[in-house]
Amino acid sequence: MRLRAPVVLPCDPACSVLRDAVVDVSPAGRLGYVGPAADAPASEDPVRTLSGIVLPGLINTHAHSAMTVLRGMGGDLPLLRWLQEVVWPAEAKLTPADIEAGMLLGSVEMLRGGITTSVEQYFQTDHLVRALSTTGQRALLGPAIVDTPGHNWRAQLDEVSARIDVDGRFCGRDGRVELGYGPHSAYTLPPEALTLVGEAARAREALVLIHVAESAEEDAAQRAEYGSVPRMLHEVGLYGGRVLAAHSIHLSDADIAEFARAGVGVAHCPGSNAKLTSGIARVRDMRAAGVRVGLGTDGPASNDDLDLWEEMRLAALLARLSTMDSTALTASDVLLMATRGGAEAVGRTDIGALEEGRWADLVHVAVDDPAFAAGLDVPDEQLLANLVWAAGARLVQDVWVGGEQVVADREPTTVDRTKVQEAAGAVNRRLRG
Amino acid sequence: MRLRAPVVLPCDPACSVLRDAVVDVSPAGRLGYVGPAADAPASEDPVRTLSGIVLPGLINTHAHSAMTVLRGMGGDLPLLRWLQEVVWPAEAKLTPADIEAGMLLGSVEMLRGGITTSVEQYFQTDHLVRALSTTGQRALLGPAIVDTPGHNWRAQLDEVSARIDVDGRFCGRDGRVELGYGPHSAYTLPPEALTLVGEAARAREALVLIHVAESAEEDAAQRAEYGSVPRMLHEVGLYGGRVLAAHSIHLSDADIAEFARAGVGVAHCPGSNAKLTSGIARVRDMRAAGVRVGLGTDGPASNDDLDLWEEMRLAALLARLSTMDSTALTASDVLLMATRGGAEAVGRTDIGALEEGRWADLVHVAVDDPAFAAGLDVPDEQLLANLVWAAGARLVQDVWVGGEQVVADREPTTVDRTKVQEAAGAVNRRLRG
Repeated sequence: MRLRAPVVLPCDPACSVLRDAVVDVSPAGRLGYVGPAADAPASEDPVRTLSGIVLPGLINTHAHSAMTVLRGMGGDLPLLRWLQEVVWPAEAKLTPADIEAGMLLGSVEMLRGGITTSVEQYFQTDHLVRALSTTGQRALLGPAIVDTPGHNWRAQLDEVSARIDVDGRFCGRDGRVELGYGPHSAYTLPPEALTLVGEAARAREALVLIHVAESAEEDAAQRAEYGSVPRMLHEVGLYGGRVLAAHSIHLSDADIAEFARAGVGVAHCPGSNAKLTSGIARVRDMRAAGVRVGLGTDGPASNDDLDLWEEMRLAALLARLSTMDSTALTASDVLLMATRGGAEAVGRTDIGALEEGRWADLVHVAVDDPAFAAGLDVPDEQLLANLVWAAGARLVQDVWVGGEQVVADREPTTVDRTKVQEAAGAVNRRLRG
Repeated sequence: MRLRAPVVLPCDPACSVLRDAVVDVSPAGRLGYVGPAADAPASEDPVRTLSGIVLPGLINTHAHSAMTVLRGMGGDLPLLRWLQEVVWPAEAKLTPADIEAGMLLGSVEMLRGGITTSVEQYFQTDHLVRALSTTGQRALLGPAIVDTPGHNWRAQLDEVSARIDVDGRFCGRDGRVELGYGPHSAYTLPPEALTLVGEAARAREALVLIHVAESAEEDAAQRAEYGSVPRMLHEVGLYGGRVLAAHSIHLSDADIAEFARAGVGVAHCPGSNAKLTSGIARVRDMRAAGVRVGLGTDGPASNDDLDLWEEMRLAALLARLSTMDSTALTASDVLLMATRGGAEAVGRTDIGALEEGRWADLVHVAVDDPAFAAGLDVPDEQLLANLVWAAGARLVQDVWVGGEQVVADREPTTVDRTKVQEAAGAVNRRLRG
């Protein structure tokens, strides 16, 4: 298949804007030639001409999307009270089928907003994989590992390792789901658990996803003993492989240097962090220190939608406000964070950019909208500003994952959206009832 | 006409949620009965049954919407450089017809997002009124009064007064445009101008719209002489009538008390203030002191879209972050700020709420979306959270102004949106060329 569009954004490091360009997709769902139509190699493939902007699918680096079934419950509470009084009691009532219904809705919502890969941390791995395989979304899945009543961290850890050892890291529809490890946080697990997770993940080249320094109080005990959570994670031996630290708000300069040194990626979740009064992460400083920073929505129970475009804008706005530097994060900076940067943060080189050999995870943004009234024949900077600041999820028209079209004209091709909404809604009603 | 919907939000002070309710609209475009269908008076009017949520049209308390023709130009500059290097040179090239084209596009964009009233400050009054009369949007229009090269503040002031004295304060389609005075700011006008504007506005019961304390440096001279801009405006005699202070970021406790005492309304523009690194206004403190605070998008050259739903969310997020209080602004708080509160801030009691006798300015929000997967039969708090946090402009389906339907199934009924976009786009191309 060859797609031709007036504008293609490959999301290379320079955030180039290609005019009248084509994107070749192999039968295996990989990208071939991406570049100006005038320079394209001869091709027998059918050409599909698009009227808008083609870019890589967005990467949501932190989510618990099955929590769509809790959306709107207790949203005016601070983090710890919200967890203890609303989320944990409700989660205790969730069946595996409930979680699958929530993940299905979350996945549909994300795909419609152009998120082709999501980094998910939640329970019931089989059901999450099944939901993702139903919609066709790509994911990195870190089954939750926690040491709280009703959960056994050793069993959870061993289960992931056994899955990977038996079936490999990649599973689900066309192998689109990569399994990793999801230790919840330093404050919900003993140090020994973190040591063993680090060992297990490194041995399998798997990603570790963990919450770090989200609120000022949650990990006071760990900070008192080790100085900081990043320092603790170093001392217990979590680092050395692929590690993604979600939130990472309350970091010192030394912590940031530690992350850069250890190659830890960060999932920045500005919306959730603001809504739960967790704070503003030091994104400009992290990027300046060489830390790879992606963007995340966090769970839809706290954010409340799974809209990575809104996170792009929030990231830029909050970086500007917290530094009083209007260039702290530009439109192209946040677009790259939502695509290429997300891939880098999770240690993947096969997604996040339109480059030959990567997966053909693509988004087509419609431009018949006031946001693009000036047309596409505008300076690159203006085009990127219009896309990031004035367009958004509402203009995502078509989406492909691995070359398979999973959203066509704003609706999922793989599931009936109405039925997915109704199933998740029924769970919400039962939780409240 | 009688509208019947599963949920009606009248935006009364308690932010009530009416279930299975009706909204009666008189032939003159005013609201009649608004309340439960079970208690509705008998009516011969045709009944239109809607499937979603009906609420008052939103009020954008601060905009320069004609600047859609500048959208995306120079967005990474701080306020003063952006004005001096990008905006003012481009504005110098704008013809009256250009401004009308820009206002048309802005008005279409606002109506599609559920904004039925906009407070506009710009040049070329006749052309702004004509654009607004074409789309059917309601507006408060403060023709700009500035003392900069090419502008004569006395002539601008006298022109507004003469218009009001000859034709009255209300003009345009069905009298939907209210004229007021738009002195730009304390730092772009001599004190005498502000004195005379205050006198002229009070004599005509007209609104004064002015920028106050937007950036930390712009009005340093005024602050040095008078202590603060709110204090200066008191001393020169601007207060006493209807005054709306846009931005109002850098205020002391005494300034806030002064605003409360003088009955000054505030147009809070969180998105623009963040993007231009102007700061975060003290919304919680202003509201606690009794200051009436509405929400504004500011001009689309700095924000960059005219989306008041996004401003609701930003207002809540930034209030939480700046106070670290997760209850600083709740979902219902920001919904009321965008409706009833906006009307209060501009001194109007005929818009902003669904109450008998007010104008039938209405928005119908579609609910076939993941945001409302739980349905409408959820607790009031959850319904409001889903509406404010997870829905948004994209779900605005139908809009009425004064009982006239101006948006049907997401498209304007009064103009051809494609032609409006093309006309504004042509202006943008010429400005750059």
